Amino acid sequence: MPKARIAVVGATGAVGAVTMRLLRERGHENVRAFASGRSAGKALDGGIVVEEATPEALESAGVDLALFSVGTSASRELVPHAIRGGAVAVDKSSAYRLEPGVPLVVPEVNGARAAEHDGVVANPNCCTIPLTCVLGPLHDAAGLKQVRVSTYQAVSGKGAQRLEQLLAEPSSEHDLSMDWSWEGDETDEEAKIRAEARKILELPDLPISATTVRVPVPVGHAESVWVELEEPLSPEQAAAVLGAAPSIQLVDVPTPKASAQTDDVLVGRIRTDRASDGYGLTLFLACDNLNKGAALNAIQIAELLLGDRVAA
Amino acid sequence: MPKARIAVVGATGAVGAVTMRLLRERGHENVRAFASGRSAGKALDGGIVVEEATPEALESAGVDLALFSVGTSASRELVPHAIRGGAVAVDKSSAYRLEPGVPLVVPEVNGARAAEHDGVVANPNCCTIPLTCVLGPLHDAAGLKQVRVSTYQAVSGKGAQRLEQLLAEPSSEHDLSMDWSWEGDETDEEAKIRAEARKILELPDLPISATTVRVPVPVGHAESVWVELEEPLSPEQAAAVLGAAPSIQLVDVPTPKASAQTDDVLVGRIRTDRASDGYGLTLFLACDNLNKGAALNAIQIAELLLGDRVAA
Repeated sequence: MPKARIAVVGATGAVGAVTMRLLRERGHENVRAFASGRSAGKALDGGIVVEEATPEALESAGVDLALFSVGTSASRELVPHAIRGGAVAVDKSSAYRLEPGVPLVVPEVNGARAAEHDGVVANPNCCTIPLTCVLGPLHDAAGLKQVRVSTYQAVSGKGAQRLEQLLAEPSSEHDLSMDWSWEGDETDEEAKIRAEARKILELPDLPISATTVRVPVPVGHAESVWVELEEPLSPEQAAAVLGAAPSIQLVDVPTPKASAQTDDVLVGRIRTDRASDGYGLTLFLACDNLNKGAALNAIQIAELLLGDRVAA
Repeated sequence: MPKARIAVVGATGAVGAVTMRLLRERGHENVRAFASGRSAGKALDGGIVVEEATPEALESAGVDLALFSVGTSASRELVPHAIRGGAVAVDKSSAYRLEPGVPLVVPEVNGARAAEHDGVVANPNCCTIPLTCVLGPLHDAAGLKQVRVSTYQAVSGKGAQRLEQLLAEPSSEHDLSMDWSWEGDETDEEAKIRAEARKILELPDLPISATTVRVPVPVGHAESVWVELEEPLSPEQAAAVLGAAPSIQLVDVPTPKASAQTDDVLVGRIRTDRASDGYGLTLFLACDNLNKGAALNAIQIAELLLGDRVAA
């Protein structure tokens, strides 16, 4: 598997940089880095020189896999060229996520779907990934009926530039914001969380209400979650279910900073929902939005695909 | 009313300083400032010199009202002395809030209860005040059935020292936390929100689930709220109800920073709870935790009491 030829497109962005580091740490040696013309020629940590991500360059790159962490419109333009060049694209933008026939994959939840691709596999939103890591096992254990979630999202989710801006600004200026586009009465982030969780969990009608909030934290998204279940599940039973689930680490109080030091989704504060008249639980989670929330999940998808290819 | 003799106890703390400023702005001229021995002798803005808050000093102060913003144990010690000296105490700590017979007052919601005091009126928790300003009118309009709330609480809620610490620390260190005491599976803040809201709204069994989170924002608490109602209420109807309610200002996206520039509770994002199978709404609010969330509410209580006294 480490011999696979991999292109990282958008290698100099916040998520791209983490992708390059994780690939190196996981032993992938045949990696090329692509980015916009501005970054072309720059040498990255590890000595890889950035190439310009033109349609022609991607079409003739001769790679097995292309991991895209660029904006949605750049993905729409460039992904087809990578596919034409023979690569399977793993795309981190929202361009293909809800397209019928495109697998939207969290390996721990619906990894088997990755093989059903037709050239592109989509990587979910950075809040959807940890949320479904938790909702999947709870659904299997007791059936999901309703989901409510309030997010606490780090500024690095808005890109490397916004992160630098936060680090430079005085703390007295720090505020909450809802810096997304709007779709009717929701942010597009809230709409994505609902639509993507439904697709990944294969529960097309699951009732989900999300409120997304940006907080002045550099790295790590947190989520305050209420779930209403079909069948009784005590907090202790839920902790046992989640503790046994892949990529979940139970802690007392999950925090963004602690999540940034691990590949796992940190889950804690699991308790009875005192507002519920049925079988309700509430919990809190934190997950590194650049790592498991983005780069790592895409690399796990890539490794699933490479495993399939080797097996075929 | 401006002739009333008022003592502010804890005048040099984060809330005490706002109390002193608001009293001056509202025309109260007969104000004395008390604090611990460390601050005694210090001259405040406006030239008032801080006196040491000893039991003897409070008992012999000869004031009509004593506004306490000190810790719970200091309140337990000092409030009885102020009462013995003939003052009515308005206490911002949690010492007396749940004591039977002690009115716990948000003037916009249950102001009439203030007159029922036996020497002390309690001021609610800084999250409970804006929450009940919103829940009260919604209950009157359509009946509250269930309440869920996730908070985004500013560090100034933890005191002036923690605020200075935030302003001095680099943004890269910023994290979320749950820096409260624990009561079983909850923070004491979560337990307070439930118990106090039930007392203020006079709904002793109202199901409330709260998750409290500290965010690295200097001033202004925000809350993400879901309410399940007994009767249908559209988001437009809810906006009309809340827009007509006292001390509420409707905005598109409430933020802590905007709340710190107003005496009102900012409310927005009012929409249908897509997870509800009944009559559910979700909304977002922000409120200055030092102002309406603490100092202003206590001053409003004081002015209610002075009004009563003048009228009597």
